[in-house]
Amino acid sequence: MTKKVVTLGEIMLRLSAPGYAKIIQSDSFLATYGGGEANVAISLAQLGIPAAHVTRFPANELGQSATNLLRRYGVSTAHIAYGGDRIGIYFLETGALSRPSKVIYDRSDSSFAGITAETIDWDQVFEGVSWFHWTGITPAISQGAADCCKKAVAIANQKGITVSADINYRKNLWQYGKSVREIMPGLIEGCDMIVAGKNDIKDILGIKVKGESDEAYKDIFSQVMQRFPKVKKIVNTHRGSISASYNTLSGHLFDGTQLLSTKTYDIQPIVDRIGGGDAFMAGVVYGQLTYGDDQKSLDFGVAASVLKHSVEGDANLVSAAEVENLMKGDTSGKLVR
Amino acid sequence: MTKKVVTLGEIMLRLSAPGYAKIIQSDSFLATYGGGEANVAISLAQLGIPAAHVTRFPANELGQSATNLLRRYGVSTAHIAYGGDRIGIYFLETGALSRPSKVIYDRSDSSFAGITAETIDWDQVFEGVSWFHWTGITPAISQGAADCCKKAVAIANQKGITVSADINYRKNLWQYGKSVREIMPGLIEGCDMIVAGKNDIKDILGIKVKGESDEAYKDIFSQVMQRFPKVKKIVNTHRGSISASYNTLSGHLFDGTQLLSTKTYDIQPIVDRIGGGDAFMAGVVYGQLTYGDDQKSLDFGVAASVLKHSVEGDANLVSAAEVENLMKGDTSGKLVR
Amino acid sequence: MTKKVVTLGEIMLRLSAPGYAKIIQSDSFLATYGGGEANVAISLAQLGIPAAHVTRFPANELGQSATNLLRRYGVSTAHIAYGGDRIGIYFLETGALSRPSKVIYDRSDSSFAGITAETIDWDQVFEGVSWFHWTGITPAISQGAADCCKKAVAIANQKGITVSADINYRKNLWQYGKSVREIMPGLIEGCDMIVAGKNDIKDILGIKVKGESDEAYKDIFSQVMQRFPKVKKIVNTHRGSISASYNTLSGHLFDGTQLLSTKTYDIQPIVDRIGGGDAFMAGVVYGQLTYGDDQKSLDFGVAASVLKHSVEGDANLVSAAEVENLMKGDTSGKLVR
Amino acid sequence: MTKKVVTLGEIMLRLSAPGYAKIIQSDSFLATYGGGEANVAISLAQLGIPAAHVTRFPANELGQSATNLLRRYGVSTAHIAYGGDRIGIYFLETGALSRPSKVIYDRSDSSFAGITAETIDWDQVFEGVSWFHWTGITPAISQGAADCCKKAVAIANQKGITVSADINYRKNLWQYGKSVREIMPGLIEGCDMIVAGKNDIKDILGIKVKGESDEAYKDIFSQVMQRFPKVKKIVNTHRGSISASYNTLSGHLFDGTQLLSTKTYDIQPIVDRIGGGDAFMAGVVYGQLTYGDDQKSLDFGVAASVLKHSVEGDANLVSAAEVENLMKGDTSGKLVR
Amino acid sequence: MTKKVVTLGEIMLRLSAPGYAKIIQSDSFLATYGGGEANVAISLAQLGIPAAHVTRFPANELGQSATNLLRRYGVSTAHIAYGGDRIGIYFLETGALSRPSKVIYDRSDSSFAGITAETIDWDQVFEGVSWFHWTGITPAISQGAADCCKKAVAIANQKGITVSADINYRKNLWQYGKSVREIMPGLIEGCDMIVAGKNDIKDILGIKVKGESDEAYKDIFSQVMQRFPKVKKIVNTHRGSISASYNTLSGHLFDGTQLLSTKTYDIQPIVDRIGGGDAFMAGVVYGQLTYGDDQKSLDFGVAASVLKHSVEGDANLVSAAEVENLMKGDTSGKLVR
Amino acid sequence: MTKKVVTLGEIMLRLSAPGYAKIIQSDSFLATYGGGEANVAISLAQLGIPAAHVTRFPANELGQSATNLLRRYGVSTAHIAYGGDRIGIYFLETGALSRPSKVIYDRSDSSFAGITAETIDWDQVFEGVSWFHWTGITPAISQGAADCCKKAVAIANQKGITVSADINYRKNLWQYGKSVREIMPGLIEGCDMIVAGKNDIKDILGIKVKGESDEAYKDIFSQVMQRFPKVKKIVNTHRGSISASYNTLSGHLFDGTQLLSTKTYDIQPIVDRIGGGDAFMAGVVYGQLTYGDDQKSLDFGVAASVLKHSVEGDANLVSAAEVENLMKGDTSGKLVR
Repeated sequence: MTKKVVTLGEIMLRLSAPGYAKIIQSDSFLATYGGGEANVAISLAQLGIPAAHVTRFPANELGQSATNLLRRYGVSTAHIAYGGDRIGIYFLETGALSRPSKVIYDRSDSSFAGITAETIDWDQVFEGVSWFHWTGITPAISQGAADCCKKAVAIANQKGITVSADINYRKNLWQYGKSVREIMPGLIEGCDMIVAGKNDIKDILGIKVKGESDEAYKDIFSQVMQRFPKVKKIVNTHRGSISASYNTLSGHLFDGTQLLSTKTYDIQPIVDRIGGGDAFMAGVVYGQLTYGDDQKSLDFGVAASVLKHSVEGDANLVSAAEVENLMKGDTSGKLVR
Repeated sequence: MTKKVVTLGEIMLRLSAPGYAKIIQSDSFLATYGGGEANVAISLAQLGIPAAHVTRFPANELGQSATNLLRRYGVSTAHIAYGGDRIGIYFLETGALSRPSKVIYDRSDSSFAGITAETIDWDQVFEGVSWFHWTGITPAISQGAADCCKKAVAIANQKGITVSADINYRKNLWQYGKSVREIMPGLIEGCDMIVAGKNDIKDILGIKVKGESDEAYKDIFSQVMQRFPKVKKIVNTHRGSISASYNTLSGHLFDGTQLLSTKTYDIQPIVDRIGGGDAFMAGVVYGQLTYGDDQKSLDFGVAASVLKHSVEGDANLVSAAEVENLMKGDTSGKLVR
Repeated sequence: MTKKVVTLGEIMLRLSAPGYAKIIQSDSFLATYGGGEANVAISLAQLGIPAAHVTRFPANELGQSATNLLRRYGVSTAHIAYGGDRIGIYFLETGALSRPSKVIYDRSDSSFAGITAETIDWDQVFEGVSWFHWTGITPAISQGAADCCKKAVAIANQKGITVSADINYRKNLWQYGKSVREIMPGLIEGCDMIVAGKNDIKDILGIKVKGESDEAYKDIFSQVMQRFPKVKKIVNTHRGSISASYNTLSGHLFDGTQLLSTKTYDIQPIVDRIGGGDAFMAGVVYGQLTYGDDQKSLDFGVAASVLKHSVEGDANLVSAAEVENLMKGDTSGKLVR
Repeated sequence: MTKKVVTLGEIMLRLSAPGYAKIIQSDSFLATYGGGEANVAISLAQLGIPAAHVTRFPANELGQSATNLLRRYGVSTAHIAYGGDRIGIYFLETGALSRPSKVIYDRSDSSFAGITAETIDWDQVFEGVSWFHWTGITPAISQGAADCCKKAVAIANQKGITVSADINYRKNLWQYGKSVREIMPGLIEGCDMIVAGKNDIKDILGIKVKGESDEAYKDIFSQVMQRFPKVKKIVNTHRGSISASYNTLSGHLFDGTQLLSTKTYDIQPIVDRIGGGDAFMAGVVYGQLTYGDDQKSLDFGVAASVLKHSVEGDANLVSAAEVENLMKGDTSGKLVR
Repeated sequence: MTKKVVTLGEIMLRLSAPGYAKIIQSDSFLATYGGGEANVAISLAQLGIPAAHVTRFPANELGQSATNLLRRYGVSTAHIAYGGDRIGIYFLETGALSRPSKVIYDRSDSSFAGITAETIDWDQVFEGVSWFHWTGITPAISQGAADCCKKAVAIANQKGITVSADINYRKNLWQYGKSVREIMPGLIEGCDMIVAGKNDIKDILGIKVKGESDEAYKDIFSQVMQRFPKVKKIVNTHRGSISASYNTLSGHLFDGTQLLSTKTYDIQPIVDRIGGGDAFMAGVVYGQLTYGDDQKSLDFGVAASVLKHSVEGDANLVSAAEVENLMKGDTSGKLVR
Repeated sequence: MTKKVVTLGEIMLRLSAPGYAKIIQSDSFLATYGGGEANVAISLAQLGIPAAHVTRFPANELGQSATNLLRRYGVSTAHIAYGGDRIGIYFLETGALSRPSKVIYDRSDSSFAGITAETIDWDQVFEGVSWFHWTGITPAISQGAADCCKKAVAIANQKGITVSADINYRKNLWQYGKSVREIMPGLIEGCDMIVAGKNDIKDILGIKVKGESDEAYKDIFSQVMQRFPKVKKIVNTHRGSISASYNTLSGHLFDGTQLLSTKTYDIQPIVDRIGGGDAFMAGVVYGQLTYGDDQKSLDFGVAASVLKHSVEGDANLVSAAEVENLMKGDTSGKLVR
């Protein structure tokens, strides 16, 4: 089976104040383009996995620039739809010490929100594809986006393509009249693997965690799997937030029986923490496609996520060799000549 | 009578690609905030005329940054309303040679579009004010904005405040169900002075120009005044577009009898032509308030507009002394020590 | 009583080498404007307290730029005097690791040094004002500045306005023929609250500290209060300097009886430590005006100062909500969406 | 027949001093990647023509960055070979007034110089291709590059693909032991269209021009065609160099009978003149593929080249609509909203 | 005789707003160091003439940075004195179109103003030197600077060193109690060559010009030479100021008999006109030392000055070959590969 | 005896991606010039020791820029040879966290590689010189560079000049047909002091270390000294690599009897670690020339190296006072006013 991965989701123009400047101090913004699912695709392309991203952009210079960013980093843009009025935007102010980073979203009525079940020809998109990834952001944006995602999952299931989702719940989205609990379960049903934090599980599925122990996690993950029998693996990360400049990170993978875990990494000083979760997901997918070993997949995913914190922008641009070096325990950062 | 001037209108975040870069080449944007009416207020404040601007911003860092820009340049922000979801945005790509500058608007559903007739307490705003200025962009944005403008003109008329308007017609706006011909005449009725190009007059009022002669202009301007008896002065500029880097500029003022005109300036090389018309308007208002002489007002307005082309950003930041120097014929640009 | 705060003091043009560059490496300087007292005013304005700053600037583009900075951040500039030849300047080189930051002052013969007792109409300035703040830098600059400060304190006392001072002693100043001990006591007499380190107290008042214990501090603070009976509160901070990139910070407030203290914060990595003390003072004033509770004022002051270390420039630009979040113990710096 | 165009040639890292800075003043360089043939491919991709570029890069971050630039602008990189030690570099200092721009080449022993007749599988490259373009730079670099080019032309001829070449002669190249007269005629033999200046024709073919008249040009172009019967069209541009900031440009196309020509454009002020000739070539190819009309092709080519002078970087990034607007006579550069 | 040239004069920190930004728009300044006489030394060093500059700097990072700039461009700093409190500063705002460039001086009480007749050991400085150059700015700064200059001229005369001066009169200087007419004649007496405009001659010597004809110039120059018999050559430039972006330039040299002149150059668009006169002077000195021909010296001086307008910063950084190319008539600015 | 130090070695153009950007993200590079031996010379010049550097540059703007950098920082360039085709280049990507910094070398066929035994007149270079320093990189570059180095050592030995070398072994160099073991011993023979890590000693001399104890080090250092009786002192540093952002550093000096050592410094956060070893060497040389005390020399060297990690660029630009402050134990980085 081929290794080609397809992702679906909105890409926004990211406008970040330079360095640690507050937005009210800035007379310029650094501009890049990112989105949870596209970040996974870009990251996979850097790791050497063929990847394509499906989205919808306005037919103007900003939609073209976002397309160009994907192409630059080797992601296929052959199935992007063009139409609608605007690209979603988010503004980023980078914190330090105990001053948090802040995001201001300006994504209403984006071109992507205007996507529908009919916009994309999924049969064509999925030719030669082995993995499809989506996140909980997409069905939260609009009915059309939810429909589009639902159709994609259904066709992927028909074709025997592995389906993964980061089911993260953003309560500020979900403005179009449906609740997360009405929509998400129907989509999770078609997944083989999910990324799920305990709050997501509580908010989306109503399953409550009893404490922080491994046993508690195994318990709720088991409940999720009982409810969604297609889901065979659940992964997540634990982030310790010591300050805006200093985090710790470790990961878990539950395979229905065992709860695998990783070492806990110190991440200091953080260069850019946006997209850390997407880098983890990309790393796990890479591991599944390359190693076929859950522990190594998980280790690779967490190491990839750690390295993402050293990379500016939304997407992880490190190579597989760089991740493997860290995964094998070399945290030294020694100069490579 | 005092000299305080009030302006009403939307302010957008202006994101411009640096230098002559195309948007698809840019990984950063210069950020400033501007809008036709606010540009007039800022320009007047630099010229020493007390000015206040009325608008509506989102209650976030971007609305605060736009407020701060007005404050920085000495414009009162005491009557700004806060609410709504987003600040309108426009993206700018600066042309050169025969490559035009390009603007991409992303202003739908802005906080300003959500303004209504009730948002602003005009009685309070107009305390101690002698001049009110608006443009044809405001009533084009939303019914609420049109209502708000209408109310402002009405109260200004009651209070004997001079009202001016740049009646420019932007056909891409006017999306809310009313046509320009339904709304604008009712607003022009309350004006003492208007800026009007021949295309604006044709599109808004259906009055056609017969040729380019002074007589032709006097004819249409007379027709406008017949229809709107309160309008006592009509001004405009003639821009010759030799290239994106080289324009010429002159101005006209019709007082019901005479058609005054200015010399024609060469403008080369253009640094930033956005806001050239607003600089002209501010200059004419300054002249009316300071000289009480139409020819000098017009000369000052055109000289101010010429100098604006040397200033980066939307608003003219030159001083009255700088304008007067040019107005008196010194185009030499000799170093001032 | 209203909450309006007035500050008096010199504002300098701050020219800092970019990033960690040494001055001898730099071919550009970042430019902003700051001064101990103005930093307090700007910080208070960000926290929502109306503030005005009194100073004297040259009537040129640099004086205008400094005025504009104050206006931008919401500080009233209505009482600034213009005159004299130059704005004071300081050059900043930012250290890292064990390499200290360096400041080169170039402030002699500034416009502010030319201020006199007659320059400012304090009766007008103090209309509707509840708090006046000055620092030991002002009387150190020139006889005129000392006179101006003295008059301000006297009139504030007459009007029942709370007076605070950061009595810091800069031995490189005091060049105009008077010593700190001749001038400062007469000014401290009019204060209700002072910021005072033990070295300041020793240098200015000749009171020596016996050790570092709380008792020792209570002892000298009591001696200060005995000498200056109007002084009801003495505050200060303890800074631990582990490196140029890593400090610790805690605070004390003595109310004549109790010595209140705060937790000790880790500050790492430092973005910009200039103005940390001013941010503390502003925080304490905010607390006094808002909470009317000494412990909360002190906690707020120290938390505000900690956050200042994450903000580029002289002045603290964080909001009250951001400070309160840290004050309540959340140091996590978690992304705010 | 499809419209896909393939180009072959070296791409160098272009390091340019910012603005008008001299290299000895610069402590940074703007970095992009370009080469005569790749510039044609990028330009065609912006005009909507599918394009692929064939070259050889080192397998390091610089080769990857150059690949990414091509991908970003939509050029297929599927047939790029990786190997060798280094990417060629050129340093650029941009002149103004009468100070010329300067280029310092550092391209010896590049990865491209190591290309051989066997490196590229031309049968595969030419699948579905209708046009192949090369320039006189490629055979000047190394025997291997000349062999590779020769093979490409031969296979293109076999497959009936249109072949074009810019035969420009760079006397500083040709260091590998062969002269231009030994190599180039054998390559020109396989061309359908060439770009050729009179100096190129004299240096490469030994044909001398008698004066500057149209008749003189027709005469030498006819001689070229007699010697190379496959060549059916010869094009070139006439550049008038008034200063580094001000050029004029017009073009000629000889079809064996007629000498077509264009208007002469004023180009002032020049933003970046590198790649003006490549933009012309791309424009002519576009015209041939789209209009099938020689005069329109030529007009489009010259207008495209003029607009290139307003675009930073090696490659022309304007759209077909922008070129057509100028080609139709609109030099006004009026703001596009 | 050797070719070593020595110059004497103040060097200031030049802080310029980036691009065409007004100072009130700028949050950074480009920093370089320059002064009329040092500009001549730097320019000569680029032209291949050994040069040393004599001045006085503060013993801090700014004095060191200024020293480093001279060293960087090959000027000997062996005779610089260190002491005093501050480096003089000037702020520059670059104009365009008819908006003039502006300079704000902040040079009072500089380290250089504290120079005295005893600061410099001129016997040591003048070892192996053939030319000494000073300007009218130096004696205008302080009595000590005038004394230092006087002593330098006297010793140069004793040693038979050629002395030149740009006698320009800056009326804003001369604040130390002496008038230009009291001081300058005594200094001009020791000169072999001067740069003198007609206004300078009128203001300093009281000689009035009768019209603009060559005869009028010959007349006043002859009067100057009669009064100062050591002066054998008088040079100057005529600058036509069409706008801040467009000047014209030509030059004159009077040798007591003949008035030589040059062609008139168009200078458009101007990159940086500061130091144009110093570049001219350096060019004339180069010509005198290299060609020993007055017409060629003058031609070289004017061509060098024209090219300076394309170079950012105070000093001319072009090479002798670049100047000669223009001097021979090649204004084409054609790309040099 | 004088203190003048001469160094010999290649200087490369260093092109670094800004901040923490990866090369594939960068569209600009910061440019400086550096090389191990030149870094020592620049550092010594900042510490107040007269220094000259010997190298070979191309006679173009890049060779001139590198020359200018040395001059700027006070290093004599009187003995630099010009010739050959290109300056060596290295590209730098700065890591953070566990992502290592990366260097890509592009230094083949540089002007320096073309140096020969005859290029430099060492008798002239060594006039008035007391110390000569070279590194193991020079003989690794080409036969000519090895010969040049050999001749320099021989003449230095004749003249009684102290010779030091950093014998570091770069296995990627040594491409010209000789092995390190054939060349280096003959060069080390002429040294009085060497910097040598245990791997260098193993690779170059075949002496193996038995463990990490002080005794083990004394043992191998003694073996080295036995083999090279002229070598009287061996120094090195121990670097602990916790991450790319956090290192520790300490140093050793063996004098044939005693193994001196220093405290271990924490270095966090690292600004730029390139040149840390060169800063150490320069510090040790400074100490030997200034203190004549081995422990103080070593302490100074390590403290200088620590501070280098806070300085951008290849060379250490801190002053002797700054190093001494740290050496005495003040790591506080307290603001210096």
